[in-house]
Amino acid sequence: MVHSTLQQPSVDALETIVSDLLDLQHELTPSFVPIRPSIPTALEFLRQVHTNFPVIYRAAAFDWPAFNPTSGRRWSKQYLLDRLRDTTVSVAETPLGNADAPLDGMFVQPHTSHLPFPQFMDKLLDLDADTVCYMQSQNNNMPTEFPQLLDDVAMDITWATEALNSKPEAANLWIGSSRSTTSLHKDPYENLHVQVLGQKVFKLISPAEHICVKESMLTKATYQKLSVGFNLTAETERQPWPTLDPDAVDSRDYWQSKVRVLEVVLNPGDILYLPALWYHKVIQVSDKEGLCCSVNYWYDMDFTGPLWQFANFVQSISNSLTGVDHNSDCVKDDNI
Amino acid sequence: MVHSTLQQPSVDALETIVSDLLDLQHELTPSFVPIRPSIPTALEFLRQVHTNFPVIYRAAAFDWPAFNPTSGRRWSKQYLLDRLRDTTVSVAETPLGNADAPLDGMFVQPHTSHLPFPQFMDKLLDLDADTVCYMQSQNNNMPTEFPQLLDDVAMDITWATEALNSKPEAANLWIGSSRSTTSLHKDPYENLHVQVLGQKVFKLISPAEHICVKESMLTKATYQKLSVGFNLTAETERQPWPTLDPDAVDSRDYWQSKVRVLEVVLNPGDILYLPALWYHKVIQVSDKEGLCCSVNYWYDMDFTGPLWQFANFVQSISNSLTGVDHNSDCVKDDNI
Repeated sequence: MVHSTLQQPSVDALETIVSDLLDLQHELTPSFVPIRPSIPTALEFLRQVHTNFPVIYRAAAFDWPAFNPTSGRRWSKQYLLDRLRDTTVSVAETPLGNADAPLDGMFVQPHTSHLPFPQFMDKLLDLDADTVCYMQSQNNNMPTEFPQLLDDVAMDITWATEALNSKPEAANLWIGSSRSTTSLHKDPYENLHVQVLGQKVFKLISPAEHICVKESMLTKATYQKLSVGFNLTAETERQPWPTLDPDAVDSRDYWQSKVRVLEVVLNPGDILYLPALWYHKVIQVSDKEGLCCSVNYWYDMDFTGPLWQFANFVQSISNSLTGVDHNSDCVKDDNI
Repeated sequence: MVHSTLQQPSVDALETIVSDLLDLQHELTPSFVPIRPSIPTALEFLRQVHTNFPVIYRAAAFDWPAFNPTSGRRWSKQYLLDRLRDTTVSVAETPLGNADAPLDGMFVQPHTSHLPFPQFMDKLLDLDADTVCYMQSQNNNMPTEFPQLLDDVAMDITWATEALNSKPEAANLWIGSSRSTTSLHKDPYENLHVQVLGQKVFKLISPAEHICVKESMLTKATYQKLSVGFNLTAETERQPWPTLDPDAVDSRDYWQSKVRVLEVVLNPGDILYLPALWYHKVIQVSDKEGLCCSVNYWYDMDFTGPLWQFANFVQSISNSLTGVDHNSDCVKDDNI
């Protein structure tokens, strides 16, 4: 077989191609996240999924007992304490509210503890505590760990289940406070995020904009809780992670100057459709009792269609230009 | 602003990335076109569109009067002659059945004539004629030029119209014979192709495989019919066009050895979903009266989603590697 004889494209040519992709994304899609006043039909939702663009369904979960003052199941600090007094929960503990986040060239993971729910709530609501707690286990905890709450919420989002022809892969309960932030990352799931208590602010970046998110190979490290404070233990393994903070974009940097960050504020009852492979940073805003609480549903994305291939190809090309090598221990990301 | 300072990726690294994309496409998608025994719901069809993968809906148009022996509108040579005896049709004429096709470094377009339908049929069915005729105008001719046939066929494909939330952009009637072939190309439409008389054989290649289709910048040329034979007049303008013949793949060539050509045989009553931006070559097989006849429906594709960006980005990267420049007059495609 005659092997491929390709030409060497110049860096300028490749930069133009990647830059054109960003321009195309920005020209063809809205510069804001649309808000719909009511729930969609399955067909309308699937059209949204097909565009791979986020949308807010305003107040679309208000029929849940968790929101209904007359249901006897309306969520509040006291209601959760009553229901979960005998439940042990898995809690991420960090010094800075930074579970699964980049820090000084490391990818830091939380100390995980298992606490009785009332004790977790005490720690969560103590704003002076030297440890920041976040119940964020993301392991389908809603049906498996919180059966007492299942009558309060939906087991799935029916129009999404019908559209995508599958039940959610996971339903997760999140309980945190303003002290925790989730750093920019992406998930290979179609995500429906329902806000219950407090607010969440999402900062969203499309998969096309991979070159703008400053992906780097970070050394994995895990917090270990000491009697006072934390120790941070580095591992040998490394992990690719976007290191851009959408709230600290440096407009003097060429690629950062080109990124489009979409901001979404999710209020109680709102459902955010967060499309598969979109980068998202999540900031929490506690309610007046100090709580920020959500339930999200992860549906399998379609791995056979253009999105998965597109995101992989864009990532590979941009990493080849910025010197990030997922398979190498030699990372040169000075130029990002 | 600090301008981007990117690294120069090696040709080998880029070749690996493009090659990995082909492998991913082949691993994640079927190696054949699925056949469904019945029409889909709108939701099922939209899921198919979302995967951007072709499918045949077997015998899905058999409820059309054009297929029904008792309708009095069943299509045949005589029926079409009766209905269209007073209609003038736009006909592509070529010496080789090669309208809109690559030929010796040129992109050749047909001589277009306007003939009374009976005269077109005479020429089409004369297998010894020195001119090959094909009624292939693709300008929404079905409703505009053939109102006499509208009761015989569907005005749209209802489940596609519901799924895509729009009427077709165009419905086209095609009347040809085994003597014409449509060369490999792509269209920016979601396409539903209904076979009525004879068969069509489609050779399909996914958008991910752009580097395999040997896109080249070809000089435009148009056939002009002379009293005997044709003259071919070249223009100054050039046109990018895939020059691969899926029926003459050179397995000694690196990229051609990697291409996956999906073959589909469409019988009367079958509907092919041909996804937007898929390359397709179309071979016609006449029925026993010498006719090959189809109706196709073009629906707008979603330009805001990942597919359009993906196909553009893949095309740009692969053209940068093979030296094809859409904006330049200097083409170096020796290396494809």
